[in-house]
Amino acid sequence: MRILGIDPGTVTMGYGVIESRDSETTLIDCGVLSTSARSPMGERLVYLYRNILEVIDNSRPDIIAIEQPFVSKNVKTAFAIGRAQAIAILAAADRGVPYHEYSPAQVKQRVANYGASSKEQVQEMVRLQLGLAKAPSPSDAADALAVALCHLSEMHIDDILSSQQ
Amino acid sequence: MRILGIDPGTVTMGYGVIESRDSETTLIDCGVLSTSARSPMGERLVYLYRNILEVIDNSRPDIIAIEQPFVSKNVKTAFAIGRAQAIAILAAADRGVPYHEYSPAQVKQRVANYGASSKEQVQEMVRLQLGLAKAPSPSDAADALAVALCHLSEMHIDDILSSQQ
Repeated sequence: MRILGIDPGTVTMGYGVIESRDSETTLIDCGVLSTSARSPMGERLVYLYRNILEVIDNSRPDIIAIEQPFVSKNVKTAFAIGRAQAIAILAAADRGVPYHEYSPAQVKQRVANYGASSKEQVQEMVRLQLGLAKAPSPSDAADALAVALCHLSEMHIDDILSSQQ
Repeated sequence: MRILGIDPGTVTMGYGVIESRDSETTLIDCGVLSTSARSPMGERLVYLYRNILEVIDNSRPDIIAIEQPFVSKNVKTAFAIGRAQAIAILAAADRGVPYHEYSPAQVKQRVANYGASSKEQVQEMVRLQLGLAKAPSPSDAADALAVALCHLSEMHIDDILSSQQ
């Protein structure tokens, strides 16, 4: 099972690919797609769309896990993330790969067992769960891996629940 | 000058094409792209993206005017509109057509001279400005034409201001 996690943003979009086999989870690839905040929104969305399609084509995930925007006090920021998220959903659907959306609190809860964990705590858990010497960088790539790990954890819980029925 | 107006939504996306020449404005085409609210979001976004690209390719606009989501009490609805708007911006940028965004209040102000006009008032003004026997239907198509007319009005104001300098 190969999972592509996406941490959407219109300036930086993080992505991380993990593979889970025989109860072992390994890092396949991670990185960020970077645009300039000064570029027009249209240019940024086109760049992100083309490159996220390339990430999907290269990594061939079975599933894509995408983080949802967090509607905090700053609605404008949430809208920008919402745009980037729409582009990620479009790319997943265009390639026929199923996708799931997770809220920031769900990601923290599943990866660090606490919905209000700090960014650092989550990144440390990503490092531990993937058996890495240090946390992946840049941090948006680590965040994307956390989204992928969140989906994996969600799947395991579903497995446990269905085996108990 | 040919203007494509877009009224974005993830269930129904209205579009309207007008042409302005020698101080005469005519309706070229209008309609809606309809999806099902029960279809998965990814499917809907792919459908809207492919079809809005087709509308652009067929109508060959010089400019695209896109209505912004209105952040009312219902943030969820605003986010859905934001997704549809991101798809419209992506399509415009993919085809290299410049685009402008207008808020619902700007559209009402420019088309019906009052930022808090009713939907019906705006549609009646669309009918009058395009010299039609009755308002275009469905209403999302008329709304899209209002966005296109808003851009036209904005351009005229810019012309007047620059001629006075």
